Amino acid sequence: MPWEGFEAMPLMDDDRLFPVDDRGRGLARSLYRTVKDLPIISPHGHTDPRWYAENENFPDPAQLFVTPDHYIFRMLASQGVALADLGVPDAAGHATETDGRKIWRIFAEHFHLFRGTPTRLWLDHSFETLFGIDVRLSSATADETYDTIAEHLARDAFKPRALFERFNIEAIATTEGALDDLSFHAALKESGWQGKVVTTYRPDAVTDPDFEGFVGNLAKLGEISGCDTATYAGYLDAHRARRAFFRSFGATATDHGHPTAATADLARVDAERLYGVVASGGGTPAERELFRAQMLTEMARLSVEDGMVMQIHPGSFRNHSAPIFLALGRDKGYDIPTRTDYVRALKPMLDAVGQERGLTIILFTLDETAYARELAPLAGTYPCLRLGPPWWFHDSPEGMMRFRQQATETAGFYNTVGFNDDTRAFCSIPARHDVARRVDCAFLSGLVTTGRLREDEAFELAHDLSYRLAKEAYRL
Amino acid sequence: MPWEGFEAMPLMDDDRLFPVDDRGRGLARSLYRTVKDLPIISPHGHTDPRWYAENENFPDPAQLFVTPDHYIFRMLASQGVALADLGVPDAAGHATETDGRKIWRIFAEHFHLFRGTPTRLWLDHSFETLFGIDVRLSSATADETYDTIAEHLARDAFKPRALFERFNIEAIATTEGALDDLSFHAALKESGWQGKVVTTYRPDAVTDPDFEGFVGNLAKLGEISGCDTATYAGYLDAHRARRAFFRSFGATATDHGHPTAATADLARVDAERLYGVVASGGGTPAERELFRAQMLTEMARLSVEDGMVMQIHPGSFRNHSAPIFLALGRDKGYDIPTRTDYVRALKPMLDAVGQERGLTIILFTLDETAYARELAPLAGTYPCLRLGPPWWFHDSPEGMMRFRQQATETAGFYNTVGFNDDTRAFCSIPARHDVARRVDCAFLSGLVTTGRLREDEAFELAHDLSYRLAKEAYRL
Amino acid sequence: MPWEGFEAMPLMDDDRLFPVDDRGRGLARSLYRTVKDLPIISPHGHTDPRWYAENENFPDPAQLFVTPDHYIFRMLASQGVALADLGVPDAAGHATETDGRKIWRIFAEHFHLFRGTPTRLWLDHSFETLFGIDVRLSSATADETYDTIAEHLARDAFKPRALFERFNIEAIATTEGALDDLSFHAALKESGWQGKVVTTYRPDAVTDPDFEGFVGNLAKLGEISGCDTATYAGYLDAHRARRAFFRSFGATATDHGHPTAATADLARVDAERLYGVVASGGGTPAERELFRAQMLTEMARLSVEDGMVMQIHPGSFRNHSAPIFLALGRDKGYDIPTRTDYVRALKPMLDAVGQERGLTIILFTLDETAYARELAPLAGTYPCLRLGPPWWFHDSPEGMMRFRQQATETAGFYNTVGFNDDTRAFCSIPARHDVARRVDCAFLSGLVTTGRLREDEAFELAHDLSYRLAKEAYRL
Repeated sequence: MPWEGFEAMPLMDDDRLFPVDDRGRGLARSLYRTVKDLPIISPHGHTDPRWYAENENFPDPAQLFVTPDHYIFRMLASQGVALADLGVPDAAGHATETDGRKIWRIFAEHFHLFRGTPTRLWLDHSFETLFGIDVRLSSATADETYDTIAEHLARDAFKPRALFERFNIEAIATTEGALDDLSFHAALKESGWQGKVVTTYRPDAVTDPDFEGFVGNLAKLGEISGCDTATYAGYLDAHRARRAFFRSFGATATDHGHPTAATADLARVDAERLYGVVASGGGTPAERELFRAQMLTEMARLSVEDGMVMQIHPGSFRNHSAPIFLALGRDKGYDIPTRTDYVRALKPMLDAVGQERGLTIILFTLDETAYARELAPLAGTYPCLRLGPPWWFHDSPEGMMRFRQQATETAGFYNTVGFNDDTRAFCSIPARHDVARRVDCAFLSGLVTTGRLREDEAFELAHDLSYRLAKEAYRL
Repeated sequence: MPWEGFEAMPLMDDDRLFPVDDRGRGLARSLYRTVKDLPIISPHGHTDPRWYAENENFPDPAQLFVTPDHYIFRMLASQGVALADLGVPDAAGHATETDGRKIWRIFAEHFHLFRGTPTRLWLDHSFETLFGIDVRLSSATADETYDTIAEHLARDAFKPRALFERFNIEAIATTEGALDDLSFHAALKESGWQGKVVTTYRPDAVTDPDFEGFVGNLAKLGEISGCDTATYAGYLDAHRARRAFFRSFGATATDHGHPTAATADLARVDAERLYGVVASGGGTPAERELFRAQMLTEMARLSVEDGMVMQIHPGSFRNHSAPIFLALGRDKGYDIPTRTDYVRALKPMLDAVGQERGLTIILFTLDETAYARELAPLAGTYPCLRLGPPWWFHDSPEGMMRFRQQATETAGFYNTVGFNDDTRAFCSIPARHDVARRVDCAFLSGLVTTGRLREDEAFELAHDLSYRLAKEAYRL
Repeated sequence: MPWEGFEAMPLMDDDRLFPVDDRGRGLARSLYRTVKDLPIISPHGHTDPRWYAENENFPDPAQLFVTPDHYIFRMLASQGVALADLGVPDAAGHATETDGRKIWRIFAEHFHLFRGTPTRLWLDHSFETLFGIDVRLSSATADETYDTIAEHLARDAFKPRALFERFNIEAIATTEGALDDLSFHAALKESGWQGKVVTTYRPDAVTDPDFEGFVGNLAKLGEISGCDTATYAGYLDAHRARRAFFRSFGATATDHGHPTAATADLARVDAERLYGVVASGGGTPAERELFRAQMLTEMARLSVEDGMVMQIHPGSFRNHSAPIFLALGRDKGYDIPTRTDYVRALKPMLDAVGQERGLTIILFTLDETAYARELAPLAGTYPCLRLGPPWWFHDSPEGMMRFRQQATETAGFYNTVGFNDDTRAFCSIPARHDVARRVDCAFLSGLVTTGRLREDEAFELAHDLSYRLAKEAYRL
């Protein structure tokens, strides 16, 4: 066999993701060397503030790496593994399999499925750099790796705050719903720990009439904000109040995950009437969509008032499988991207606030065809718009390269905002930033070796893309 | 002139389609060396079973290479050559030009049009490997090449079965309509020849109300199946019977070529009513589309029953030119791809059967934007879904590379199914598989040289992509 | 700092845009050497015929490079620079800032925004080759470069005709509206200067009912053509007359910039009725779109009559920002591409005239997803269709490479028409053609080094793509 003996090699190639030509690789290495140790700015993500607040050890390897990670469990499911066998809870919250070692063995047995995927890069990075593992995961090495990871996780040096410091995170943002009491952020504040963990205002549960419990959510919003959400004015005041509350825990940004990028700018009387319809649990699908659309414009207006950066993450068809949703609930790997229009969709909001100084709206997409056609032209002219990094399925080496290749020529680099890890998988954060830094260095190197950029500019840009742009765009 | 003397060089570069950097090229060569002689699994195509059954010599070179190949005659037509001058028959089946040599001279004169196309790669491969031709086709070499090919085609060693064996085909699937009596497959079975040639069930003529003669086709379906196609239940039973008949000639798969990927899952009473409407030749365009949609779900249910693999080939706008269709009939090079939605389209079928164990549905597309956005996420979670290889216009080096670049990071390799040649051009089969194997080796090599995959894994994957995945997915 | 000392290097890399591997770079260089000095055929653009007619010196550097160039001012605007500060006039034609040096300083200060964009390549090319500048533009070098350029612009050798000759332009087409009196073309004709400057017939103002002043434009059309535009027949005759008038000033082509690619082929009586509706200022949005659609087919019919090449540039959402349009008027950087369908859109026109010999229709797109899916298949079969080069946002190294990668395998090279600079920025013309020639040489080189094309063919193609195809397609 031509590949005997490879199992024992280190998991990672030092030059991974760099160009293959000598000059390009050499320059990419030089660029990377200047950014690899920069602090991590993680301005958008989904880590649990409880971790930082309580600083408890993480549970077993399966609970850390497999069971909560939709990238992993959906791939195993796609090849016939039952989610229950991976400990993924059902709609009632009940997990069939709770034996971490059993879950880990199934995972290890299917590890080849991740060949060529970013998940594989993230996992190998974590295994090697955090746990010193130098054997590839497989059925043969399942128990050995499980034991190694479990042993590390029990140490103090692997508690959340220690890892946060080890990861060299300068600032991280979590994401909380509008109704969250931010108790973990409060506890964290009082703890005296110096790690910078801020929240992000994510009001979908009270801006999307199709969100579970929307009507009750509005009542709760009124209650906790002290505003009368029976009226549209009171409802908007409640948002004002909550946004201020979130800002008191460091929030600099809001986030909006709508099925489309539709915005609207209704006359006040029409907006009030529409609110009346949806707030009572009514409304046709078109009216519910119109309300979401109107809310994006209202949120942008509030951002003009209070300076919060607005993020729009549109285009996911959530919970695509009806039987899976019924049996297992949301977030079970069945969120599928859809074609997304931005040009007509954003016009009402941009006509309303698109020329406001101080406003920043960061656009994301799950539809890569929009990069060159819509997003770069829009961000390349509207002063309020910036392009978020490749998101979700596109947070990958090929995805990042396509983003730079398709967006840069029209939007340049300075209408982009650096990297978001956007993850709840804590251990993957350094790996994800490392991938982004490497791909950007490779892209910059390619521009230099093809005579489109000068070396000094590439070094400056490598720093900007790895650190400065995220910090500035998110005001962290 | 800087390029004098090149005409006499061999037609093919031994390293074609491999990476240009030394390490990448070396590894691609090594990978390719382990797969180039693997048997061909051709699980989906359109070769004529009559060839294998009767084993007659192929007619002249023009009839083999030019007249029946839509890749070739459409390109010549695009530059003003009349299809009649290429021997392409009109709607009544009459061919104006029947002199093979004349046709061949026109083809040779326009051979430069194929520069940079896969057709050129396939032709040069056939010319050189099958007929020992070492001069490029042009007006100057037209007669010489014609004579060489004609002389070879007259030999026993160039009869279909001899070529089948020479091509090292382990298994090939043809495609027949639901009403076909499979007489050539029957003759083949009785002949005692050991070549594995199976059929595929393609029921469009009896599932698409817009197909020519649909109402008559239903009557014929009833007659040959012995089922009462006047009722929906009888109609479905007729499918059951025909599928069983096809399986008795080796069929392991069905194939469905619809204008869109729409599926539906109507209540039984609504499906019966709809069948009544379309079976009598009625129905609005929307009802006819709904019937096609319903039939995909019914076919998937029958696949759950009988284990046949289901292939969906949506998105071709057939017979785009009305005057050409009127004068010359179907399949004259005027089938044009259209934007194709999968996310909403497939949901009814996937809600109905998407979690069934043992079901395999292979999705194809003519809309490459769906690879990363829709197809890879769907196949990367639904256990029944697999991604077919790049199809038709995308069955090309760039098309294959884009497929791997856009699908792999989300779906991995193991939700894909190897290569389909999908051709009626017999001599192109080894060439097409060779292109696919080379591109896959190049892609794998690139993953290794950029540190995203280990060498041993690349060797295993090269074998999987060239041979094993097709064999397993199609159960051959 | 690792990049000290780079500021003083020449602005351009001699090998820019070539492949990075040695063999590929060497071959690209050889190919480029044979085409770099070929005359420029510029068959579609927006330079001002007044320049050639009056041959006055260009005003200051800012008026030449910054104020009229939407690529530049939109990028600065996207980062918060006020258009007024760049001298861009408001809707009434009033320019706030008229001090060229002040404008230039703002531009210089923001020059880093163009890193990685084609604008940067074009500017550096002009700065270095025309003005001998060898320092990068920045705040530090703003005054020095301004003075150098201003000093050159005052010379006789920098007058329009001298530059035209220096640029080695064999033929250039300007674009004029149907109502233009072509007085500058007339003056040019009488001047005895031998430069070949032809016009192009662009009738949008009298074919698009949504164009400003449409009804009045029809009256003016009747007046200047001597035809009765109160009737549809007279209206079409007026087009005939104007097209003939334009041809008398060298026009060989027409150009049509519609929001979509929709075409229609109404019965004569319906077309007449529709004309009655829109010519009186009426019509629903759908009727206005239908009229534009009908006019594309009528224009194609007139092209069959008079042999003019037809260009279709669809898919721009013009004047996206309502407040900017209100304050500053059209063409202020807010034209955004949209998804564009060609398959269904073009069918009526193609059914009407798609098989006409002698007809050439050149299709452009702002939606790159159409290259492989729709445009290459259409141009790869319809004899009248050709593909225009990458347009506007896609007139860039990555855009050109994507075009070749996505269109060639289906349409080949010979259904494309060489390069269009499509610019009003005179000094950028040599730079733009240089980029196109380099990228094509790089693409061809890549085909050779990956064994998909022979060297002699690459040399022939390099010449075709740089010169011959444009000349032939546009009949110049």
